[in-house]
Amino acid sequence: MRYHKIPDEAVRRLPIYLRALLFSSEQGRNNISSRDLANFVGVNPWQIRKDFSYFGEFGTPGVGYNIEKLAKEIKKILKLDIIQKVALVGAGNLGSAVLAYTGFRIYGFDIAAAFDADPKKVGRKIKDIAIEAVSNLPTLRKRGINLAIIAVPRGAAQQTADALVKAGVKGILNFSPCYITVPKKVKVITIDIAMDLARLPYYMPAS
Amino acid sequence: MRYHKIPDEAVRRLPIYLRALLFSSEQGRNNISSRDLANFVGVNPWQIRKDFSYFGEFGTPGVGYNIEKLAKEIKKILKLDIIQKVALVGAGNLGSAVLAYTGFRIYGFDIAAAFDADPKKVGRKIKDIAIEAVSNLPTLRKRGINLAIIAVPRGAAQQTADALVKAGVKGILNFSPCYITVPKKVKVITIDIAMDLARLPYYMPAS
Repeated sequence: MRYHKIPDEAVRRLPIYLRALLFSSEQGRNNISSRDLANFVGVNPWQIRKDFSYFGEFGTPGVGYNIEKLAKEIKKILKLDIIQKVALVGAGNLGSAVLAYTGFRIYGFDIAAAFDADPKKVGRKIKDIAIEAVSNLPTLRKRGINLAIIAVPRGAAQQTADALVKAGVKGILNFSPCYITVPKKVKVITIDIAMDLARLPYYMPAS
Repeated sequence: MRYHKIPDEAVRRLPIYLRALLFSSEQGRNNISSRDLANFVGVNPWQIRKDFSYFGEFGTPGVGYNIEKLAKEIKKILKLDIIQKVALVGAGNLGSAVLAYTGFRIYGFDIAAAFDADPKKVGRKIKDIAIEAVSNLPTLRKRGINLAIIAVPRGAAQQTADALVKAGVKGILNFSPCYITVPKKVKVITIDIAMDLARLPYYMPAS
């Protein structure tokens, strides 16, 4: 089954639901109502039902969702039911923070390689991962690495993306504060932490 | 004018529109159609028109949006038309990356203070900001700092949030991979970089 025409926004919310489900499961729950799930995530219950409706029928009226079943289904939709290998490019402060981040495992991600342009950093180990020269990027394809995180300075972002695409990477999480251009078959998600911060003042009471 | 009942999702998109407008302005453009803006941001044109409809009428049929005027209006809605001072707590790898990040300025943010629990880090300077002891957090109120970024280890996140709330902080951007509990009047946005990564495999072609 292919899931065409699903809005990006619905896809964006699926990992949020998944995190809430995994968290509820850890707390020993078996079922969750769409209202509880909605409260947990911060959306309306109808939004959840609408998002899920793109993919099939998951809930039972009055009983709610079976957490384990729904989590499994979402993982399958998001292709997180297999271990996904990820490469990190840029082992500066941000890249090091990414390597130290423990939250990837629950989604099935394995940060399998790290690269840096600085020869002084090559060979150093961060969290058991030896940093490689960027000239090694072409090896990604044969190592089965299809995803990459870009954490290089702004000026090096586009050339990094180009090298990743050439090496067969299909999805890029970009932390450099700039737009990068890639072929249509490659998906880029750019994270701008300032943009997340930019939502906060809206909610502050007038002073 | 107060903007009640605006969905969080619409508020979330406003900074994205703002970034696109500022970028288009840099490129010397004066006007932008909702279709161009939509392409830029990756949503449907009707979504943009709907989002803006919560706040008033900004576009002229056939001419599109005046970029400068719309950017100014969005800044006002988001309360980004004044400089917002921000405190950072946690000066590890991630915190240092935040301090080095140059993207805050365009939204009017001033990272005005940084704190760390490690006495060895206190007094060090990162990008002209001297790191202070967390015991200084109660000074935030009188320094006019209402926003904070939490970049501490998971185990210290809740107590950091408690100290920030006590110091009068009204908005928190949380990078610790955990839920933190705050009074209703305080807004928390939690960033989970693994969750952003979790959207990527969905878009990858079946291999």
